[in-house]
Amino acid sequence: MHTLPELLDRIAQYAAEQSFPDQPSMLYEPCDYILTLGGKRLRPATLLMGYELFRDSDDLSDALPAAWAVELFHNFTLMHDDIMDAAPLRRGQPTVHTRWNTTTGILSGDVMLIYAYQFLSRAATPDVVPGLLKTFNRVAIGVCEGQQLDVDFETRDDVSIPEYLRMIELKTAVLLGGALEMGALCARARHSDANHLYHFGRLAGTAFQIQDDLLDTYGDPAKFGKQVGGDILQNKKTLLVLKTLEVASEADRTELNRLMQTGSDHADTKIAAVRNLFNRNDIPAHIEAAKQQYQEEAFRHLDAVQVPEERKTVLRSTMEALLEREF
Amino acid sequence: MHTLPELLDRIAQYAAEQSFPDQPSMLYEPCDYILTLGGKRLRPATLLMGYELFRDSDDLSDALPAAWAVELFHNFTLMHDDIMDAAPLRRGQPTVHTRWNTTTGILSGDVMLIYAYQFLSRAATPDVVPGLLKTFNRVAIGVCEGQQLDVDFETRDDVSIPEYLRMIELKTAVLLGGALEMGALCARARHSDANHLYHFGRLAGTAFQIQDDLLDTYGDPAKFGKQVGGDILQNKKTLLVLKTLEVASEADRTELNRLMQTGSDHADTKIAAVRNLFNRNDIPAHIEAAKQQYQEEAFRHLDAVQVPEERKTVLRSTMEALLEREF
Repeated sequence: MHTLPELLDRIAQYAAEQSFPDQPSMLYEPCDYILTLGGKRLRPATLLMGYELFRDSDDLSDALPAAWAVELFHNFTLMHDDIMDAAPLRRGQPTVHTRWNTTTGILSGDVMLIYAYQFLSRAATPDVVPGLLKTFNRVAIGVCEGQQLDVDFETRDDVSIPEYLRMIELKTAVLLGGALEMGALCARARHSDANHLYHFGRLAGTAFQIQDDLLDTYGDPAKFGKQVGGDILQNKKTLLVLKTLEVASEADRTELNRLMQTGSDHADTKIAAVRNLFNRNDIPAHIEAAKQQYQEEAFRHLDAVQVPEERKTVLRSTMEALLEREF
Repeated sequence: MHTLPELLDRIAQYAAEQSFPDQPSMLYEPCDYILTLGGKRLRPATLLMGYELFRDSDDLSDALPAAWAVELFHNFTLMHDDIMDAAPLRRGQPTVHTRWNTTTGILSGDVMLIYAYQFLSRAATPDVVPGLLKTFNRVAIGVCEGQQLDVDFETRDDVSIPEYLRMIELKTAVLLGGALEMGALCARARHSDANHLYHFGRLAGTAFQIQDDLLDTYGDPAKFGKQVGGDILQNKKTLLVLKTLEVASEADRTELNRLMQTGSDHADTKIAAVRNLFNRNDIPAHIEAAKQQYQEEAFRHLDAVQVPEERKTVLRSTMEALLEREF
């Protein structure tokens, strides 16, 4: 068993041993570039934790290629999403399509997705490849569908809360679930355990995203890492907005809709006004309760995995820390 | 053994039984749309021909999912290439990013690529999946590299003939070779035969593309299907141009470079002038010889496949007809 820092170390070591071809440089430089922008690499680490529930050996070579495939897939989605969102910056650095151009962003993203599949095909023993491929495809399709729903929601004003939850689940949470399931598959765990792990990741990932909406408005600016109030200024239809539109009085709903049609000239005033509206409708408590519900259901799936409790320590504590935003 | 029309029929039947999910409709409608624009479906048919070299059964179900994967992959490349080329039309119909928008073109293309992998994972017996995946990845990476080289060449004026040939080989021919190799893998053919088939497709596909450059300037307008002289009007650095710059006198090279900096206002005059330049340098004969060389090398690989000659009839005659532009 390895700790999270040890696993991240192994991933960094494995990543350093891999390289894209030198040529065509315009195709592969952006792939190297986005990988150096410094993501937390929690997805591949999660895959390895799923693997280590069932295997106790210092050797992680049966799971590292699949872990790296998940990281490449994630970076492919970032490259293409940044084009769709017309995002100029990622982690304070120019996005690929900004630093190069849209053609490069599309094509380098494409080849990165294909490399993800290539790493998948390098699983130590070929007999686990078909199962890994099935899970990976299912999850990858879910991620595309989630991104499409997110795009669709921008121009819809009748998005329901279940639809919104499904969108965040697909767009971000299923990949975490898929990573855990693939870790289990690499270890040849029984099907029921792999399935519980998938749902653990899916539900915990959704809880994380629900909390993300809350922290965007209520987070500690020093800890959150993004501008607090950013969603309000962008008039984003977050879970807080949808919940308000569900539970608030007609006057408050009208007021919220009005505020969401204003610009961000008086940023502080606008943030304060919307936050007041949320507060008097008890929205933070509602959202916190929704997060708690997902989180509890998630951990019931982890409890159900048929391995001794002590083997679950690293995965359990990492996910708890993640949900407490301790890193 | 099936004839080409029979194989195309089977593919159409198989395709009709598959469907994308209904939702999100903005994600999947463009996938259905591009598939109905009516490609010739030669790539999946070629995969089935490769399969039928080694298998004699009316049942094609061991090869049809992989054949469909190749067709989906091809259509994914069309969707993304059309964005990169800013192409408004494909087969006389609006391209996906024109009919919808760039976001849709990117995301529907992405999901189509993932569906290609999903069909690959549906091969009748899981033990062929790892091999299919390896071949598919290698070829898919080649196609992306070829597209990147094509993009790079637009802004380079020192492209050599070997570089150009490598670009067309990667961009279009390796997929034909990969389709044949995958057909052989579905039939569990021996490795050496699968390898010969790959090179047969790769070389024949390159011969086809070389001829495509020739026909763009010298083709019969009634048969060629595209505007004859289109490459000249677009100042494309085709094989004809590169060969002229290699063999012509300095005066002719200067003249060609000058013509390639003019617009297309006097289309007929420009086409005639460039064609004259090609003619007096014997370029058509040079290009024809290059095509012939690739074609002969291609068929030597087909000859080397260890199955009775009569089993090769459909594949051989289809490829010959393709290279004679009979369909």
